[in-house]
Amino acid sequence: MRDSGELKALVLQTDFGLADGAVCAMYGVARTVCPGLPIFDLTHEIEPYHIWEASYRLIQAVPYWPEGTVFVSVVDPGVGSTRRSIVARTTGGHYVVTPDNGTLTHVKQIFGIEEVRTIDEVVNRRPHTERSYTFHGRDVYVFSGARLASGKITYEEVGPSVPVESIVELPLLLPVKEDGGITGTVDVLDVRFGSLWTNIGCEDFDELGIAYGDRAEITISCDGRTVYQNRIIYGHSFADVFIGEPILYVNSLNRLAVAINQGSFARAYNIGTGNNWRISIRK
Amino acid sequence: MRDSGELKALVLQTDFGLADGAVCAMYGVARTVCPGLPIFDLTHEIEPYHIWEASYRLIQAVPYWPEGTVFVSVVDPGVGSTRRSIVARTTGGHYVVTPDNGTLTHVKQIFGIEEVRTIDEVVNRRPHTERSYTFHGRDVYVFSGARLASGKITYEEVGPSVPVESIVELPLLLPVKEDGGITGTVDVLDVRFGSLWTNIGCEDFDELGIAYGDRAEITISCDGRTVYQNRIIYGHSFADVFIGEPILYVNSLNRLAVAINQGSFARAYNIGTGNNWRISIRK
Amino acid sequence: MRDSGELKALVLQTDFGLADGAVCAMYGVARTVCPGLPIFDLTHEIEPYHIWEASYRLIQAVPYWPEGTVFVSVVDPGVGSTRRSIVARTTGGHYVVTPDNGTLTHVKQIFGIEEVRTIDEVVNRRPHTERSYTFHGRDVYVFSGARLASGKITYEEVGPSVPVESIVELPLLLPVKEDGGITGTVDVLDVRFGSLWTNIGCEDFDELGIAYGDRAEITISCDGRTVYQNRIIYGHSFADVFIGEPILYVNSLNRLAVAINQGSFARAYNIGTGNNWRISIRK
Repeated sequence: MRDSGELKALVLQTDFGLADGAVCAMYGVARTVCPGLPIFDLTHEIEPYHIWEASYRLIQAVPYWPEGTVFVSVVDPGVGSTRRSIVARTTGGHYVVTPDNGTLTHVKQIFGIEEVRTIDEVVNRRPHTERSYTFHGRDVYVFSGARLASGKITYEEVGPSVPVESIVELPLLLPVKEDGGITGTVDVLDVRFGSLWTNIGCEDFDELGIAYGDRAEITISCDGRTVYQNRIIYGHSFADVFIGEPILYVNSLNRLAVAINQGSFARAYNIGTGNNWRISIRK
Repeated sequence: MRDSGELKALVLQTDFGLADGAVCAMYGVARTVCPGLPIFDLTHEIEPYHIWEASYRLIQAVPYWPEGTVFVSVVDPGVGSTRRSIVARTTGGHYVVTPDNGTLTHVKQIFGIEEVRTIDEVVNRRPHTERSYTFHGRDVYVFSGARLASGKITYEEVGPSVPVESIVELPLLLPVKEDGGITGTVDVLDVRFGSLWTNIGCEDFDELGIAYGDRAEITISCDGRTVYQNRIIYGHSFADVFIGEPILYVNSLNRLAVAINQGSFARAYNIGTGNNWRISIRK
Repeated sequence: MRDSGELKALVLQTDFGLADGAVCAMYGVARTVCPGLPIFDLTHEIEPYHIWEASYRLIQAVPYWPEGTVFVSVVDPGVGSTRRSIVARTTGGHYVVTPDNGTLTHVKQIFGIEEVRTIDEVVNRRPHTERSYTFHGRDVYVFSGARLASGKITYEEVGPSVPVESIVELPLLLPVKEDGGITGTVDVLDVRFGSLWTNIGCEDFDELGIAYGDRAEITISCDGRTVYQNRIIYGHSFADVFIGEPILYVNSLNRLAVAINQGSFARAYNIGTGNNWRISIRK
């Protein structure tokens, strides 16, 4: 799927932040492997240890990149433990280098994974780093990712293939349809705009027969406690409602979202994310 | 003004922040248009919906880039509405791709704009995104910007030319001279250093006859209420005053600024920005 | 040490933050010097004026980059004063462009500096910027760094050589061994994870004879006042202790560090950094 020798982009995601030198050290390792390698960032602001968020951010970015792009995601609470280090090849021809800890949950279920290989650390590890137990992002993951992206190794040379179904996955709930409504989870926030992004796809929503301009009944609950219940307009985009007015819309991942135009829905009603935050849409 | 086929840099500005995958998706779209395209960031920390700030940050960065550089600025509270999408060519030979909502105010008045074209979304839009109403940054702006920067389309192929005077502009006050003083506005903060950047240019200031080392009387008011009044030293740079002492100086855009050496003037006196924040300088 | 004419990477560090256009202006200057120059960031979130932190972040990143890489570090409280502008060549063949204010302290003591040259601002300054006193990062440092990285000037053409021992250094305490223990300083935090990074190297620590899985007595004091005292496990990495448990480990710079697995040691006990924060390790 990759032409050996051709440079692919390397795209990094971590929970390290950009306030210290850690990400820059990773860049340096990659540029040492291959001085001309193009390197980019997904984000380095994943909440520390928040594997779910890392998994979600991958689906926001991966499909927009050219085939063969190599993503390195390092949110790794188990660094130094026996958790495996793996490289997945997605159905779309992208690669993701990551600890095997659930980071591939969304990519696997939404895009599909064709093959998984474990990193053979005997060859795919920076020389003389055997005593480093805390920064595999630098010594194993970006090193392997850069070698793969630059064609220094083929995908097969990453290490032995393992069954796709053997990788760790986080529990992922699917939306449920029931008597004229659909119930899903609040997966993630569009942080700066305070919008709630749900796991309800627009095809499922379309079956409810709600037209643009109609109002839908939205109920949000956390562990069974109702936190919000109101009828709000279904629109194309924020511009369809007044400033300060709530809106139900299809987000840039083709899933249903709820927002307040130029306000923050999440802060207004203290809404969080995760499998215990449920949202129901009813005509 | 551009050699067709040559790669120009693409420089992105948004109010999306870097905590999620939105900017990375934009990068991916640009690299898909042209895999070798060099892409950089202006900033992604514009306060959400703050068009004025987006307009100001452009003049801080645009003139330092080579001719032909393509800037994409997406601060777009009207996404999904009928606001136009445009590409301006500045007098200096730079391009700015943006919603037509006032983002070009400072660029037009300070550098000048030679020509404006509206984006023809029939051709300059990612295929199969006609149902996306909320992420034109990804589906229209960066897509068009990348095509222009990579020479896939010429400026003329962006879409039809429209009158320069037809674009939306925010109200921009000019400094006023009166009996030995000059009064302007506090335009923006140098955020991390807490300095106030005014709209008073150094040529106008020079007429006051204040020499380095002299003290000038500074009065700052908000909606007519005086917030600060004191005589402070006019110096070349922070190093001309003691730590903790205020200073009046010419900033890196050749405009007058007020700061506290190693402190924050804005926080010390609760100073904000915008047309209702006035600052007077008097000998 | 550099092949003239070959492009080396340029890596920038400042205390400017990324919220405004300052760093982007520096990028633009560098790309104007040489349109194809590869440019990267170390960090722009150094606490304003915090020279010590700038010095420390350099050792976190510099050695992982290819020989010949040019670092530009602008944390410059003395901008506009008579402080010198210099370019150091390290023993490892990297270059650091910086105001001479202590930024090179750790690089000199830990890696070694082979030669220092002062920047001749008559030639190595952006044309027509003689009246700019506040943004030498843009007008002098990145301009000179880009010329050096792109081979437009040789290292000799930076300006005259000055004695290595003439550069400004911050006081740097060395760890002290005494009756079965070792005492050092808390140099810096691993910010997002709240770990304390000390100046105690793992060779010195090894002499204490503490094995993996053993407990060591840790005492932390500030100006003589004990702030923390407890016996904690020495492990390879966080995964060796329970979530919420403290751990002593060797960090990614081969120095001793203290953390709480998935918590923040620094916040838990209000620990700061600097020469007045001492940490003792005892068997």
